[in-house]
Amino acid sequence: MTSQGLEIIDRPECELLLRGRTLGRIGVKIADELVILPVFYAVIDGNIVFRTAPGTKLDAAVLGTKVSFEVDGTAPGWSVLVSGHAREVRDPVQQQHARARLGQDWPEGERDRIVAIRAEKVTGRRLPGVR
Amino acid sequence: MTSQGLEIIDRPECELLLRGRTLGRIGVKIADELVILPVFYAVIDGNIVFRTAPGTKLDAAVLGTKVSFEVDGTAPGWSVLVSGHAREVRDPVQQQHARARLGQDWPEGERDRIVAIRAEKVTGRRLPGVR
Repeated sequence: MTSQGLEIIDRPECELLLRGRTLGRIGVKIADELVILPVFYAVIDGNIVFRTAPGTKLDAAVLGTKVSFEVDGTAPGWSVLVSGHAREVRDPVQQQHARARLGQDWPEGERDRIVAIRAEKVTGRRLPGVR
Repeated sequence: MTSQGLEIIDRPECELLLRGRTLGRIGVKIADELVILPVFYAVIDGNIVFRTAPGTKLDAAVLGTKVSFEVDGTAPGWSVLVSGHAREVRDPVQQQHARARLGQDWPEGERDRIVAIRAEKVTGRRLPGVR
């Protein structure tokens, strides 16, 4: 399927592509500004899960709000866009699982909060001929 | 200078970092959706310059509106965020210069439009200890 020169990637393949990466960009409106920031993530139970530092602008902005999340590959070749509401993961078992999956890239001594984006909408596109 | 665990990158260094990359992500509000898409870009006369395909949603959405543009590096280590208004580059000499700088990554036979984002606000942040 194509749309305006780009092939549309169906949802199952989008989900595979999301699982194959660890670095994405979150987009959220903060005040009147559209803020885009890189985050390490994991896909857990169909959610995009990442860390924020409590007390930061990002942390305050994402909780309970609808955010966007983008992953791309092959410079760029393809991209997948997720949108959905973000919430804090509070269950200690789920937190521990998420921290194990997210690895140790977090600055030492920083407290963290685990945030999950429910993948309510997932779309993907690819330049023709790129695999 | 630090802010909530991240070092702030001053504007001159942000501009150096922007000049050192060719792939960034544009963020724009389309209808009620915050859309983030990868684009190849060049910095020309202080503007972020990239191509869009006329008739696409991205093309329609960015012209004349305020958009965001993000570049990051070293997985992720640092990121720079630009915000400003986007306009079409119509001058043939500027168009030619932009196409030469943007290279030949464009799908063959596609028409393109050259868009410039005026870098009205440029901010950057870096994890402590990352260079």
